[in-house]
Amino acid sequence: MTTTSETATSPTAVQGTGVVPGVAYARAVWAQPQPEVPVRTEEVPAEQRDAEVERLVAAADAVASRLEERAGRVTGVAAEVLSATAGLARDKGWIAEARKRVTKGADATAATVGAVDHFVALFEKLGGVMAERTTDLRDIRSRVVAELEGLPEPGVPHPDHPFVLLAEDLAPADTADLDPALVQALVTSLGGPTSHTSIIARQRGIPCVVAASGLDVVADGSYVLVDGETGLLEVEPDAEQARSRAEASAQEMERVRAWRGPAATSDGQRVDLLANVQDGDSAAVAARGQAEGVGLFRTELCFLGRDTEPSVEQQASIYAGVLRAFPDGKVVTRTLDAGSDKPLAFVTQPDEPNPALGVRGARIVQLDAGMMTRQLDALAQAAGEVGRPLADTWVMAPMIATPQEAADFAALVRERGMKPGVMVEVPSVALQAEQVLEHVDFLSIGTNDLSQYTMAADRMAPSLAGLTDPWQPAVLRLVAMTAAAGTAAGKPVGVCGEAAADPALAVVLVGLGITSLSMAGGALPGVGARLAQVSREQCASAARAALAASSPAQAREAATAALAG
Amino acid sequence: MTTTSETATSPTAVQGTGVVPGVAYARAVWAQPQPEVPVRTEEVPAEQRDAEVERLVAAADAVASRLEERAGRVTGVAAEVLSATAGLARDKGWIAEARKRVTKGADATAATVGAVDHFVALFEKLGGVMAERTTDLRDIRSRVVAELEGLPEPGVPHPDHPFVLLAEDLAPADTADLDPALVQALVTSLGGPTSHTSIIARQRGIPCVVAASGLDVVADGSYVLVDGETGLLEVEPDAEQARSRAEASAQEMERVRAWRGPAATSDGQRVDLLANVQDGDSAAVAARGQAEGVGLFRTELCFLGRDTEPSVEQQASIYAGVLRAFPDGKVVTRTLDAGSDKPLAFVTQPDEPNPALGVRGARIVQLDAGMMTRQLDALAQAAGEVGRPLADTWVMAPMIATPQEAADFAALVRERGMKPGVMVEVPSVALQAEQVLEHVDFLSIGTNDLSQYTMAADRMAPSLAGLTDPWQPAVLRLVAMTAAAGTAAGKPVGVCGEAAADPALAVVLVGLGITSLSMAGGALPGVGARLAQVSREQCASAARAALAASSPAQAREAATAALAG
Repeated sequence: MTTTSETATSPTAVQGTGVVPGVAYARAVWAQPQPEVPVRTEEVPAEQRDAEVERLVAAADAVASRLEERAGRVTGVAAEVLSATAGLARDKGWIAEARKRVTKGADATAATVGAVDHFVALFEKLGGVMAERTTDLRDIRSRVVAELEGLPEPGVPHPDHPFVLLAEDLAPADTADLDPALVQALVTSLGGPTSHTSIIARQRGIPCVVAASGLDVVADGSYVLVDGETGLLEVEPDAEQARSRAEASAQEMERVRAWRGPAATSDGQRVDLLANVQDGDSAAVAARGQAEGVGLFRTELCFLGRDTEPSVEQQASIYAGVLRAFPDGKVVTRTLDAGSDKPLAFVTQPDEPNPALGVRGARIVQLDAGMMTRQLDALAQAAGEVGRPLADTWVMAPMIATPQEAADFAALVRERGMKPGVMVEVPSVALQAEQVLEHVDFLSIGTNDLSQYTMAADRMAPSLAGLTDPWQPAVLRLVAMTAAAGTAAGKPVGVCGEAAADPALAVVLVGLGITSLSMAGGALPGVGARLAQVSREQCASAARAALAASSPAQAREAATAALAG
Repeated sequence: MTTTSETATSPTAVQGTGVVPGVAYARAVWAQPQPEVPVRTEEVPAEQRDAEVERLVAAADAVASRLEERAGRVTGVAAEVLSATAGLARDKGWIAEARKRVTKGADATAATVGAVDHFVALFEKLGGVMAERTTDLRDIRSRVVAELEGLPEPGVPHPDHPFVLLAEDLAPADTADLDPALVQALVTSLGGPTSHTSIIARQRGIPCVVAASGLDVVADGSYVLVDGETGLLEVEPDAEQARSRAEASAQEMERVRAWRGPAATSDGQRVDLLANVQDGDSAAVAARGQAEGVGLFRTELCFLGRDTEPSVEQQASIYAGVLRAFPDGKVVTRTLDAGSDKPLAFVTQPDEPNPALGVRGARIVQLDAGMMTRQLDALAQAAGEVGRPLADTWVMAPMIATPQEAADFAALVRERGMKPGVMVEVPSVALQAEQVLEHVDFLSIGTNDLSQYTMAADRMAPSLAGLTDPWQPAVLRLVAMTAAAGTAAGKPVGVCGEAAADPALAVVLVGLGITSLSMAGGALPGVGARLAQVSREQCASAARAALAASSPAQAREAATAALAG
């Protein structure tokens, strides 16, 4: 069947949030939903309680065995995740708690739900790493309940044809052994850009849409076209057009996979593509890819989860690990960004009414000036260990708000012979960029926080996500001011927020005068391949179009139109 | 003794935060400090406990009598405050609690401290109005303890000559009957711009400096020169120079008292000077002064402290009270600014991690769109009641962040025939002001919140107060962009934050193109008198100088220098 787009009847469509780009066309397969927990009021008679305990243990055992069987069919991280989940199914703790409940009269299902919920509540109260285990615990609860109730096991079916996986949300055990050769896309009705599903999809390069409310109108087995960039899912679209879009997308992805750096526009303007890393291991992974260096080394890792500050020697050893990964490449270290959503037991002020507007980042010098100088000492020591010239050791401070704060930080860095810069995440620094550049050698724009403050909207608040879009024209205007100040001063201005990882936005940023982009390693080839397709003048024209727009959607459209035109 | 400033030896000086301008020169008099509470470990013998109770009651009685005597010498609010504090000294609640402690063996002093601290802790837990009484309770505790221990009563001495009052901090009973003819200035080592001392000083027009750490180097009886604008206190300065500065300041204050509106620059450019009000009563007070209208009517008052939304009729009646105060003047009503530091039981989302970046202001339409439309209906109804044309009924929304939000709000206002505007407190609106002005008829800059977001610093955090200074050049740059957009569109742009009340900053704001300034009524003559002294070109030149500065202090200095030059 061939129709022109004018006469085609509009197919059913569901709009979600695109989180991993790519277009897929395949049959929809629904993950089994969580089982309903039946409500029973009568107690299990005392004489049947031993049998009920046995039934409970057998169910947990069956669930664990199936997970172990799946673990045996894969390797690496996937096998580890599945084995760990199997171990949790056999965990003595929750089973003992459930057993106690059965001996008081609960049936096996109610005892499982009660016992697991008990531990979930406990772990959530403990917070941190323990709280992260609650997703797995809830998953175990569903699987054991389904087993006890004779319902299909929740989770992912394993058809032998290519498919688009639909689900409310996915647990780690669901996604561990997804076969990327068969799973063409993931679409969930819940979740957000930072949910487990999004993270896995991004790692595996599987097109993904989340927060697709109304997804349950899509019948299991129907053909769907999913666009991981626009977030649109179309049910039973025109087959020929859909197939051709999916093929074009596959070719584009192939082109991205084949891309090799260093990055430049089609007419040869170089752009530094760098990686965001948090330790020597992640820096080594980045060095094996196309990254030319590190644009953002988050030093929080060696501080988080500790009760005391690590020694200068401990810090130096971690910093040296990162420097070593790029012996000749640029490495930009960011000093400790503690406070707000990254509290540190030994520095963060408790009970700030608005931690994101509080004593965080470089403002900790108010509380403990020595922590900053010890960190700089450690970095200088690390540079010495790996033989990197101090003059080529870039270091920047987060949450700087005034030229004076920049000058104070720069003085500390220059005393040690290193190269000072600051993050641009407070709007005032963008507005006074030319004055800040009198004191430092480079700037790096953190678009996530810059958007949060410019729009006065918490970037963690789901209901305000539309406001903190990095395509907000107001944010782009601040980027433009910052980049212009950099050009005038002849000093580099990079972007190291989420914006840098969006190929379309990367083109706009380069057009605004940004000289380096730092991102998660996986996003780098997509950005490099896109930049290779456009000229300097096209970048500038896309930038002008985006700046003149009045909304994020208009900015994206205008930039796209400027590139097409 | 006459010296030239070159040869004068620098006198001892203490730097604090100036909160009420004016220069005073007089003898320093220290308020009596809080008495030290002696630590005694031995119990009062059982047979002496009745006598100890009597001693306690007598002490409370003596304190109450002295307060009543002072109350009898004054009238109005001062008398009310002193009588209320005397009543608290005789309060049965804390005395019964203290008596209980004595019968268990505590001495009268320990019993007083224990009993009062018990109620302080209780009231602080209750919060709200009860928590506000804890300052008075602590004051009573100190007075009774001093009486019991035979120490001088804490608080303010009453010399019969002019003096500068120095204190750690002042309680309401301390300041109630200060004689403004004798008290030339207040200086405290604690407190901040919003402390009780600052509020009282501002009300009475007494020059005042707070947060003057190191103040205890100043000896009782020494001559001091206090500058309530710069926050500097000099000990034993050159007498002749000091006297002449104080006289010049007194003349300036007299000129301010004599000033009459409407406001204009020396060469006749009109500036609307308006009042910030919260109900009909405060609007009536403003109308008796020099205000030409209301620049900010905070409608929160009729919502705060309620469990349910007031009806349209209840709202209309309050709004009509404000409109009635200025039958022919401009009145700008701001729709409900709930959330953040002004939570409302029936709309605010609990437990936002950063309420200042959360669902507040106009964002409540996300939670309850009807609340906004009912408020607009009530305002239109109020305009009808008082016979004000709807086209001259100005109404603006707080916390607007995008042109689209402005357009949505404007549509609701225009449907009802009224005149729509928006607050500029989110940086994005200043950055996109020309696009926002396509939809609304006026803008009003809230400098307090605009500074908070531009500097990413909580305006309630004392440790970040330097960052949220309204003289921050980055904030002034956003004001300049907004004003320029208003001039280009031919639409008025006002300022209704704290900045408008600072005469020097008001000159800069007018120079940037601001057309109206709205402030607390008391600040209005000072601003009007200052504007009358400067020309349009001088305002513009001060504005250019401030914009080019890199810090708040430099901006203030540069503006002052530009006006002098």
